[in-house]
Amino acid sequence: MSAMPPPPKPLPEKNFKLIVEYDGTAYCGWQRQPDRPTIQGLLEDVLQRMTQAPVTLHGSGRTDAGVHALGQTAHFRSRTRLSPEELHKGLNSLLPADIAVRTCQRVPLTFHARFDCRWKRYRYRILNQPLRRAVGYRYAWHIQRPLDLAAMQIAATYLVGRHDFKSFESSGSPRAHTVREVMEAAWRESDDHLEFDIRANGFLRGMVRNMVGTLVAVGMGQRPAAFLPELLQAADRRRAPAAAPPQGLFLMQVHYAPAP
Amino acid sequence: MSAMPPPPKPLPEKNFKLIVEYDGTAYCGWQRQPDRPTIQGLLEDVLQRMTQAPVTLHGSGRTDAGVHALGQTAHFRSRTRLSPEELHKGLNSLLPADIAVRTCQRVPLTFHARFDCRWKRYRYRILNQPLRRAVGYRYAWHIQRPLDLAAMQIAATYLVGRHDFKSFESSGSPRAHTVREVMEAAWRESDDHLEFDIRANGFLRGMVRNMVGTLVAVGMGQRPAAFLPELLQAADRRRAPAAAPPQGLFLMQVHYAPAP
Repeated sequence: MSAMPPPPKPLPEKNFKLIVEYDGTAYCGWQRQPDRPTIQGLLEDVLQRMTQAPVTLHGSGRTDAGVHALGQTAHFRSRTRLSPEELHKGLNSLLPADIAVRTCQRVPLTFHARFDCRWKRYRYRILNQPLRRAVGYRYAWHIQRPLDLAAMQIAATYLVGRHDFKSFESSGSPRAHTVREVMEAAWRESDDHLEFDIRANGFLRGMVRNMVGTLVAVGMGQRPAAFLPELLQAADRRRAPAAAPPQGLFLMQVHYAPAP
Repeated sequence: MSAMPPPPKPLPEKNFKLIVEYDGTAYCGWQRQPDRPTIQGLLEDVLQRMTQAPVTLHGSGRTDAGVHALGQTAHFRSRTRLSPEELHKGLNSLLPADIAVRTCQRVPLTFHARFDCRWKRYRYRILNQPLRRAVGYRYAWHIQRPLDLAAMQIAATYLVGRHDFKSFESSGSPRAHTVREVMEAAWRESDDHLEFDIRANGFLRGMVRNMVGTLVAVGMGQRPAAFLPELLQAADRRRAPAAAPPQGLFLMQVHYAPAP
């Protein structure tokens, strides 16, 4: 009778970084919730099936219901034998058509998708013409009235810099620290759309949609461009106009410092 | 006691032309079907509510389930008191986000959206890269393997002209006449996509998707470009490769002769 073979030595823990694209229309946002479809929840479920062990996925941050992403970034630790390439292919073959993994790579165990983020870039798309469109209706806010792009551009420049953005924080999730640094905030015309690009070292909950709502109020002549510095100064979200709807918003890119 | 007023004289019948855009993902095609969502069915229902009388909408032709349109064209007759502008606004406020009316205009009673059509133009979009995309997944056929665009371009030129297109007709709907004239058929690169534009005086059922399926077989090296004239000559649809899926196809434009 031969001796029992020793149990296989557990593989060392590895850390994986994912860049994820999604059409958020069908989801209750990024963050896992019981009994509701979320992007984190779906990704964790598929990763668990593939690695045959529970997986916790850490995103760079949440996105709200209906918000899209081209470059959401997340990490997870696993003792899987699967290579990053195998995980990548497996994820894309098991995930639904509205979620796609762009890259999957090994990263040092110290990498954290949320804490190591240096800046993020969001884009907001507005279809500004009298007629709404059917093709691509999931990807823009339709505004019939012509917007004053020059006024919106001036107003946007007030957002650039280090400010207390409390006036642009959505209710229900107050943060102790509401100062952030906006590196870029600018509008441009692209085909039929107006696009607002904003890059910052961090975003408060609902910050981009609240900003776009205010900038659109300027574009409609309901507020002067000088309302922006006034609103920042007030640090009071009750003074801000209504937020823009989610379907125009895209998380474009999450940037990390190069590994030391 | 005053005499009863005479019943209001019925208004004369008028003819209206609509140009309709739709994201066909959620629909079982253009043509009305009992108990299934179709674009014609929805438009007729909304028009009936608005005009308070049954309405029959005549499209330029059917589109299959999942196929989109930027320029589907249709006409309907009505004795409504509503102006074309009122119909247009009312339709767009009552229709769901994935159907939009681009134009609504009075046309002579003789106008018929199907019989007066001189040519139609379709576009087929292919995402030809290793990774699939999540944003816009409803609007393209994803093909991972690199396609030989030059070979597909040569193959497409064989389609131009007056031919019997029986080999490209989908089963289940044979037409007595299968000769059509293709005025243009060409591929182009557009951002990440390959786009096939085809214009013809008429299309058989499934014709564009069957053509694209065959052109892609050429692009994959499974057939030589010279297979196209051979297939046209054979006039036998069983010899054609599988059809392309519906989500890449857009009815772009329906052209009519200028009114005399």
